[in-house]
Amino acid sequence: MQDRLIDLVNTNALKELRAILIDMNEVDIAQLFENIDREQIVKIFRLMPKEQAAEVFAYLTTETQQLIVETISDKEIAIILDELFLDDTVDFIDEMPASVVKRVLKNANPETRKYINTFLQYADDTAGSVMTIEFVDLRKKMTVAEAFDHIRKTGVDKETIYTCYVTDKNRYLEGIVSVRKLLLSNDDELIGDIMKSNVIFANTSDDQETIGNMFSKYGLISIPVVDSEKRLVGIITIDDALGIIEQEATEDFEKMAAITPSEKPYLKTSIFELAKHRILWLLILMISATFTGGIMKGYEDVLSSMIILSIFIPMLMDTGGNAGSQSATLIIRGLALNEIQTKDWGKVISKEFLVALISGSVLAIVNYFRIILFGMGTPAVALVVSLSMLITVIMAKVVGGILPIVANKVHVDPAIMASPLITTIVDALALFVYFSLARVLLGI
Amino acid sequence: MQDRLIDLVNTNALKELRAILIDMNEVDIAQLFENIDREQIVKIFRLMPKEQAAEVFAYLTTETQQLIVETISDKEIAIILDELFLDDTVDFIDEMPASVVKRVLKNANPETRKYINTFLQYADDTAGSVMTIEFVDLRKKMTVAEAFDHIRKTGVDKETIYTCYVTDKNRYLEGIVSVRKLLLSNDDELIGDIMKSNVIFANTSDDQETIGNMFSKYGLISIPVVDSEKRLVGIITIDDALGIIEQEATEDFEKMAAITPSEKPYLKTSIFELAKHRILWLLILMISATFTGGIMKGYEDVLSSMIILSIFIPMLMDTGGNAGSQSATLIIRGLALNEIQTKDWGKVISKEFLVALISGSVLAIVNYFRIILFGMGTPAVALVVSLSMLITVIMAKVVGGILPIVANKVHVDPAIMASPLITTIVDALALFVYFSLARVLLGI
Repeated sequence: MQDRLIDLVNTNALKELRAILIDMNEVDIAQLFENIDREQIVKIFRLMPKEQAAEVFAYLTTETQQLIVETISDKEIAIILDELFLDDTVDFIDEMPASVVKRVLKNANPETRKYINTFLQYADDTAGSVMTIEFVDLRKKMTVAEAFDHIRKTGVDKETIYTCYVTDKNRYLEGIVSVRKLLLSNDDELIGDIMKSNVIFANTSDDQETIGNMFSKYGLISIPVVDSEKRLVGIITIDDALGIIEQEATEDFEKMAAITPSEKPYLKTSIFELAKHRILWLLILMISATFTGGIMKGYEDVLSSMIILSIFIPMLMDTGGNAGSQSATLIIRGLALNEIQTKDWGKVISKEFLVALISGSVLAIVNYFRIILFGMGTPAVALVVSLSMLITVIMAKVVGGILPIVANKVHVDPAIMASPLITTIVDALALFVYFSLARVLLGI
Repeated sequence: MQDRLIDLVNTNALKELRAILIDMNEVDIAQLFENIDREQIVKIFRLMPKEQAAEVFAYLTTETQQLIVETISDKEIAIILDELFLDDTVDFIDEMPASVVKRVLKNANPETRKYINTFLQYADDTAGSVMTIEFVDLRKKMTVAEAFDHIRKTGVDKETIYTCYVTDKNRYLEGIVSVRKLLLSNDDELIGDIMKSNVIFANTSDDQETIGNMFSKYGLISIPVVDSEKRLVGIITIDDALGIIEQEATEDFEKMAAITPSEKPYLKTSIFELAKHRILWLLILMISATFTGGIMKGYEDVLSSMIILSIFIPMLMDTGGNAGSQSATLIIRGLALNEIQTKDWGKVISKEFLVALISGSVLAIVNYFRIILFGMGTPAVALVVSLSMLITVIMAKVVGGILPIVANKVHVDPAIMASPLITTIVDALALFVYFSLARVLLGI
């Protein structure tokens, strides 16, 4: 499909192209824009009716948005701004260089300009920064019929009409009523009588992760956002919540792999940005690994009298690291989804200890017989390696289980307590145990 | 709030409790049930009106659901089944022991029983297994007024009424129309004239991950599911999609930490299950690490003539592992979100190579001066270690970037190509490079 459209663009078959575009989904059209030559973009953009053009605009990448805004007329900018939802406008302006922002603000109507300026002030990743203002507001004393009239008159410009918000004249949030409820009620019933007053709402300063968890916990399609006086200032709809949930998960993946999080997709990120986001953690971890070297240096006598011992070091370290990151990952994810709380630390330690005892014992036994059967070492060496294995797995799992909870307690993101950091800690512990056992059991 | 409710339960203040429950969100009530004594559960469950009880039931854990079903009467079971949406019924039955399933099916009405049996046959994690049948269907020749009548008459039992599905008499999906569109149209317009016929839909056999990606790509609130003849058989609503997206992310987190995925929350999983899900991968990886030991054994002469070399092994291995898992994580996540495709392999290799060249060089230089300044080795040793570092980082990033794409190409889940496996591979490569360089540059 995309290929055929690109053909039409290249052969300049604009009439045919227009006919197809009108029937297409805006997301798919936006995708087309990313695959055609820069010179063609504005020409194709102007083919679309203005509502559709604005909707497609919201789905474009920052680069394409900028290219379009820099090419089209002031009047065209004003039309797009008029059609865009405020949250999309703010997202777009947030990414533009100052010169573009200035031109866009100049062409916004005064009310929109005021809203944009307010919204740009909400801190990143808070409810305020992701909400939008296009909601339906009703009054308690309206009848169902009046509510429908109001929706019919104003609904075309709203992000969602399916949940309506009941406010008083000071914009204080009194309740919500769904269109489903309105449809199933009689025309003369009062909104105040059918609304739900026990409303789940967010504050402008709430973290977006909290918002994502509210959506998935309660299965809502929109959440009202209130200011410190409980005045309704915006709503967040579930399509944005979906983006938030994916973004938060991506950030956790990145933090857990010791990468500074970034919102840009991989293929759109430059080499230098990619390197910048990775190098700091690699440096920190490389230098931390010096401790491990220090421990080995301290046991140089043990090592030099039995070179065979060094052969098992990579296996011990890797197994310890893997055992620790298994535990850390489960706990970090559990904390992110609110399935585990700080108060559960005791349960986590005892669970991890017992799990480690079981899995560590199995690994130790398998390892013992492997060393003996393949003639990789004497029974005494096999014993040292296997005992170290058991103790390492126990330490790794307890450390991996508890550090994310400690981080959470002191308000550090638990995700940074993931594999790389755990591995570095566990490596040092593992080597220490290994050499101490060797010294005692092998009498070196 | 939860504490006060538990007090009311314990003091048997049922009247007061009932008054509070009626106004509460069903999700919060379900949470209350998990915190009270088993003996109290059915008593409190029976306090609620039947619609609310059924809704709360859908949010309970499997254990609590089973406890309730085993205690209440056949008639009460029939009432709950009548109120539950089919997808919740199927989810619940899927987890029950055979004896409970038998009793539940006996009390379902014949039509529901037929549907349950059909739905239980869809493979796990497919669109068929997560969809539900409670949707509004309209006909092309209906007027808007007739459509509203139809919604008012049947809408109370539907999972969503906001997107209505237009089918012909053979249940073939012809289009969709939103309640928003209906509200903004005139009463005498025909559904066939206002419906959207370019519909985004899923097939019953589609993977649930695909469904999750469709929701987030297109910002939909429901997706119709059709059979092989494009007959409409069900819908998936966005609240279920949210669960799918979180579940798929959790599965990726678990696979990437070398854990067999599980749908149960950590605190609800037994010690033995936790151990079972971790031990297989730990064993596989422990045995793979034997190769690393083998390489070290092959270079025993190098090691024994310069024990100092062994001190840098943990640092080299850890840095290589971290560099590789950074790359693997970004690519695995990009593939999961459809931001990266198999055809991008060339771009990924060249990006990873250049990123590795930059970050590897920085690490190597820092490392060189660190060794010299702290008197940890001779300039020759520092050179060997630093060169090995650069080459290891390059290999780690290229291997970490490309293996997930290879896995994707051969239809293996890329998530298993995460840190633990990459670490094992990179460890072996790093040791090989290190000892080879030592032999050549130090003339051992």
